[in-house]
Amino acid sequence: MSSRRDQLFAFLLEAEKLKSVTRATPIHDGSRRENSAEHSWTLALYALVLAEEAAPGVDPLRAVKMLLIHDLVEIDVGDVPIHSQGGTAHDSAAIQNAEAQAAKRIFGLLPKDLCDELLTLWEEFEAAETPAAIYAKSLDRVQPVLLNQLSGGGSWLDYDVTWDQLQTRVGTKVARGLPGVWDWVQAKIRPWFAARGL
Amino acid sequence: MSSRRDQLFAFLLEAEKLKSVTRATPIHDGSRRENSAEHSWTLALYALVLAEEAAPGVDPLRAVKMLLIHDLVEIDVGDVPIHSQGGTAHDSAAIQNAEAQAAKRIFGLLPKDLCDELLTLWEEFEAAETPAAIYAKSLDRVQPVLLNQLSGGGSWLDYDVTWDQLQTRVGTKVARGLPGVWDWVQAKIRPWFAARGL
Ligand SMILES: [Ca+2]
Repeated sequence: MSSRRDQLFAFLLEAEKLKSVTRATPIHDGSRRENSAEHSWTLALYALVLAEEAAPGVDPLRAVKMLLIHDLVEIDVGDVPIHSQGGTAHDSAAIQNAEAQAAKRIFGLLPKDLCDELLTLWEEFEAAETPAAIYAKSLDRVQPVLLNQLSGGGSWLDYDVTWDQLQTRVGTKVARGLPGVWDWVQAKIRPWFAARGL
Repeated sequence: MSSRRDQLFAFLLEAEKLKSVTRATPIHDGSRRENSAEHSWTLALYALVLAEEAAPGVDPLRAVKMLLIHDLVEIDVGDVPIHSQGGTAHDSAAIQNAEAQAAKRIFGLLPKDLCDELLTLWEEFEAAETPAAIYAKSLDRVQPVLLNQLSGGGSWLDYDVTWDQLQTRVGTKVARGLPGVWDWVQAKIRPWFAARGL
């Protein structure tokens, strides 16, 4: 029978697989695609550093915790790019159901108390209603925008993304938690879209 | 002149480069080497999940913060494998000096207050004297051991590591912050070394 320590490590070793989940966004120099593990690190760092941009009352360390675990479900489901299938796949019921099953399986490797704690935190992130979850979701949406910009277009090119589509699929979500940041980002990326008549 | 927000993002975009720093340890399936960004994510997750293994009084979220930033200096210096040059390179004065310069440059991209905060946190990690830093250092040393085990030997093969060398270079550091975990890990990995007469 497995000890409590066996269960902690069963979860941590399962989590290693997130390094093999590839995302649509290239890394900074365009040399390869980002994976969901390093993406999660970046977002946790964003949550620390951009704390002053968050709405009053947001606990940035709660957002850090959410962001560290938010993509673990992709070990089973894969990453669903935000611009794929005309922007409809990401929030589909089928994907959401598969992710909920994955969360049960993966957090279920932990002892019950920790499983409950991380599952609750993951559900809070997904629901995007609490201040910390709104902040975390805004970070999750804005970082790929900056990577696309850094790498010369990235998934905007792959999915023929227009300025209006970016606003609908990404901008509204970023602005919800980080309005000042979205203004700043728009000024940086507008020329890329304008130059292409998008 | 650059705004405070420009400075926050100058740092965050510089941090993206950590995804191009390759480590000696393979990822779980041995398909490629781990990079320092995804390694940092793994350690932050370890710090959350193994909090109950830490010494009394350790704030696991302080350790999470340390681990998110602890390897950023490798953007300038690269990763120095723990088993390279007979285990002597990692703690050499030359490397420590280069890392201190890198910390000043990279955290120096931030506004002064945040620069000071993260530089202090990085120095606390490096000194490994506070309970949170001892915990964080133990996690940093133990995770590569588990990846080497998962992937069939990894950097132990590359550097001809013996059981005694592993104890000196790694075990003593892990056991300092996580004695129970080191006992558990030793039982898992002893057969690998025993089978090779190491
Ligand atoms: Ca995602």
